[in-house]
Amino acid sequence: MDEEDQDIAARLYVTAPLAAGLAVPLDADQAHYLRAVLRLGPGGAISLFNGRDGEWRGRLVELGKHKGLIALEARTRAQAAERDLWLAFAPVKRARIDYIAEKATELGVTRLLPVMTRRTNVARVNVERLQANAREAAEQTERLSVPQVDAPQPLDRLLDGFPAGRRLMVCDETGRAPSIATLLADPVARAADWAILIGPEGGFAPEELDALRKLPFVTAVGLGPRVLRADTAALAALAVFQALAGDWNTARGTLLSAAAVPI
Amino acid sequence: MDEEDQDIAARLYVTAPLAAGLAVPLDADQAHYLRAVLRLGPGGAISLFNGRDGEWRGRLVELGKHKGLIALEARTRAQAAERDLWLAFAPVKRARIDYIAEKATELGVTRLLPVMTRRTNVARVNVERLQANAREAAEQTERLSVPQVDAPQPLDRLLDGFPAGRRLMVCDETGRAPSIATLLADPVARAADWAILIGPEGGFAPEELDALRKLPFVTAVGLGPRVLRADTAALAALAVFQALAGDWNTARGTLLSAAAVPI
Repeated sequence: MDEEDQDIAARLYVTAPLAAGLAVPLDADQAHYLRAVLRLGPGGAISLFNGRDGEWRGRLVELGKHKGLIALEARTRAQAAERDLWLAFAPVKRARIDYIAEKATELGVTRLLPVMTRRTNVARVNVERLQANAREAAEQTERLSVPQVDAPQPLDRLLDGFPAGRRLMVCDETGRAPSIATLLADPVARAADWAILIGPEGGFAPEELDALRKLPFVTAVGLGPRVLRADTAALAALAVFQALAGDWNTARGTLLSAAAVPI
Repeated sequence: MDEEDQDIAARLYVTAPLAAGLAVPLDADQAHYLRAVLRLGPGGAISLFNGRDGEWRGRLVELGKHKGLIALEARTRAQAAERDLWLAFAPVKRARIDYIAEKATELGVTRLLPVMTRRTNVARVNVERLQANAREAAEQTERLSVPQVDAPQPLDRLLDGFPAGRRLMVCDETGRAPSIATLLADPVARAADWAILIGPEGGFAPEELDALRKLPFVTAVGLGPRVLRADTAALAALAVFQALAGDWNTARGTLLSAAAVPI
């Protein structure tokens, strides 16, 4: 990284507007993190983003026990347009659902939709925790936005209210569907707006797969000959989608400053 | 799954030969797992594989505190040929390195090679632990083989002793390399034997990247515009490789019995 960025102590997501001359308040958790974890004092350099106004460099001007204030100095990166990509997934146990939220954020998902299916054996989803995992992943991996995390909903409701114009890519573990790469070889498929749907650890119930296959906006794809855990399937499908239909042909330099630190 | 497999209580990797009429001994850990975790008794149905002789159904005929014996009944799956694919990676901290071993196994890696680079900040690698993670992932995801795990070695030694005929795909986070999908659009590249190399959390040192680029068997590829953590990069590169150059066009049915349980 270049000298100018050597001193950036942290990268934080905020909801406040970011513009020249503004001072941005920190919440209690952020103030605690800067003070107790990073042991930062007034004058410390922070990088801020809010998903709308790009990335800004600022200086810590106040730091209390429960609040802080950052004076913005300059915009370091422009907000880049993002490909709209949803991940709908059946909740899995704690470590693996955290992992899905973190990795989906790194892989550019714009919206996370927990979906309850017949064989989903996780009763409760901590939406705030998923949102926190997504925010932290964005902060640590230079992303300029944080995916939206929806409240859990039954699969039926997702399908009933599915938006017109969007397509649903169902990762089908039965081995009957063509590979995801075969689908994405089609330019029409590559250009579409997609939601990727991953089933629970027990897989979709046969009646769920049958119902999904009957819907005009659904396309079933396969993820290869090996059984994949639900979290692996989510990540693998997202990586292949971004590599073939997403933004992997965009050079890092166009979105990141030369000073970007690989994580 | 069909009725016949409803009663399979566990799927275990063993080193002993598997053939009709043989009885296979279990080690102390396996005996403990069947007795204390699964509460299985004599007569319980077990599925066994050794990476050579396919998958066999057997019955527990003896189960002691530290040993057990399984009588083989029938072969349930043939040993399928596997695409030879290596993953060389700079060790990362515990949870993430466990994750790399698990996910690389699910994604069909045949050999895991921990590699020490300039910026690798993990001093020690527990090879036995990585091997156990790989074995467990194979047992739980229907794979019929377990990847080999090498002892850690310096990057220089990996490169000096790199086998003739194999190519090395370096995941380059600087954004200067063409996307992995661009490389794998070339049929010659798709047909080659590859090792994928993932750098440490701090990225490769500039001199390491320069040295790598000078080697005739090295090709640098990009993994998109977002910074990826080392474990995400490994998984994403493996998924894209298998989707484009690997075995993702093989229907699940050809490698797995109809009774395969999605994980």
